[in-house]
Amino acid sequence: MSPKPDADSVRTLGILAGSGTLPRAVAQACAARGIGVFVIDLGGAVGDWARDFPHERVAMGQVGRVLALLTREGCDAVTMAGGLVRPSLTGIRFDRQGLALLPRIARLFRSGDDGLLSGVADMFEEKGFPVIGPEAFLPADLARAGDMVGQGAARDDIALGRSILDALSPFDIGQAVVVADGVCIAVEAAEGTAAMLARVEDLRAGRDGGGVLVKMPKRGQDTRVDRPAIGPDTVRAAAAAGLVGIAVEAGGVIVLEPGRTERCAAEAGIFLHGFAR
Amino acid sequence: MSPKPDADSVRTLGILAGSGTLPRAVAQACAARGIGVFVIDLGGAVGDWARDFPHERVAMGQVGRVLALLTREGCDAVTMAGGLVRPSLTGIRFDRQGLALLPRIARLFRSGDDGLLSGVADMFEEKGFPVIGPEAFLPADLARAGDMVGQGAARDDIALGRSILDALSPFDIGQAVVVADGVCIAVEAAEGTAAMLARVEDLRAGRDGGGVLVKMPKRGQDTRVDRPAIGPDTVRAAAAAGLVGIAVEAGGVIVLEPGRTERCAAEAGIFLHGFAR
Repeated sequence: MSPKPDADSVRTLGILAGSGTLPRAVAQACAARGIGVFVIDLGGAVGDWARDFPHERVAMGQVGRVLALLTREGCDAVTMAGGLVRPSLTGIRFDRQGLALLPRIARLFRSGDDGLLSGVADMFEEKGFPVIGPEAFLPADLARAGDMVGQGAARDDIALGRSILDALSPFDIGQAVVVADGVCIAVEAAEGTAAMLARVEDLRAGRDGGGVLVKMPKRGQDTRVDRPAIGPDTVRAAAAAGLVGIAVEAGGVIVLEPGRTERCAAEAGIFLHGFAR
Repeated sequence: MSPKPDADSVRTLGILAGSGTLPRAVAQACAARGIGVFVIDLGGAVGDWARDFPHERVAMGQVGRVLALLTREGCDAVTMAGGLVRPSLTGIRFDRQGLALLPRIARLFRSGDDGLLSGVADMFEEKGFPVIGPEAFLPADLARAGDMVGQGAARDDIALGRSILDALSPFDIGQAVVVADGVCIAVEAAEGTAAMLARVEDLRAGRDGGGVLVKMPKRGQDTRVDRPAIGPDTVRAAAAAGLVGIAVEAGGVIVLEPGRTERCAAEAGIFLHGFAR
């Protein structure tokens, strides 16, 4: 395989897009940088914003169709962005090329979300489409170590959150928890961070809260896919849930629109902290 | 302390009641058995059903008031039932007796939900009110080992769910997860099982699902409080979420209204399985 291009050398990026704000941010950032975009809406998870870009909806399992679309549109790289709730294997209607890959896909299905996404990334690369993490196209930095916004606080809750995520790491579950006063009140799995924070907001129903969002990558996570990220939306959701701060692994978690994210945190009065692995 | 009375010798039960269907079920079952009931609505978490019984609403932290009410109403035992979202310690307005216990309560706050509830149960027992688990008053059995309804299935998913709950056990988090095709899609924390199953239903949005609810007590759990339970509502919620079955620890999880729960499962076509610890 030829060496992977960096984002600046990509001419047209195929975005395999799920739900959430990340795929749209990637598409808009590419447009601003003069990189062409083709959005593949996986199973209808993508919002109306896709209408602003060349796009096509495909059902899960339409592997041959996706490869044909990427070729037709002249994509020279692919990124996978956004959330997907994986269907059951028996619920997928595979096309002919998908069926040929079925034994391999069936094996991947047993290997957790991260294993599945990694395996899908490998398949695209074998077909000649390098897979690049979405953050390469975004105004984003990896989290810095230390206090990014506000003063160090809630150290015990951060330590407990890290211990819980470490204990969950072998099981390929979520990448985030909410801990308050020594108690874990929410664990993220397939619903994603935004839904978890909305749940904490509901549970508290406006009562006094406290607590910290702790987010870090799983051990051995494939950074081409599914790298954990925070951004202005995360900060707003954490503040709405009554949290006092957000702690992320320095060098492991993406901060989208870092300047705006830090301003949001400062305005909301919540801290942003990066801990070393 | 005198030996703990069994449910049949209780004349008037004080129910420290939170949200959910369990406190109402306890009150109704007591009424049917001729046991008097006094419902203490903790912070307004209890539904309208409390109007059918002698009741009083108290704010968290009104320890002296709760003890005075239990004495006034002649309660000779107490049960703790239903869900509570713990407030932050600084948000509680303690009465005088509560303030006297504040150092102890502050310590309990650092020991997780289970530690907090156990400590509160200890305090009631010291004040002369034995604490009895709610299941003692209900038409309920502990789950049996083996296939209660349906045939053994999804053994790998059950094993994975048990491993995840074991890994989480030291952290005093929830008691249930949903696992489908080798992937954990939801972890219960403060929101409770019903909210977790509703989330899985939403995530799937009617798509083909599969998967198993796995529920078991935390290691070393105080069985006076917060013992995990399933019932007809759990079965209906699991079926609505597209699950194929429910697996619980035999001898460790309460089955409310066992006959009706098993009929519900049979009608919904989902299995009920009890695994040995």
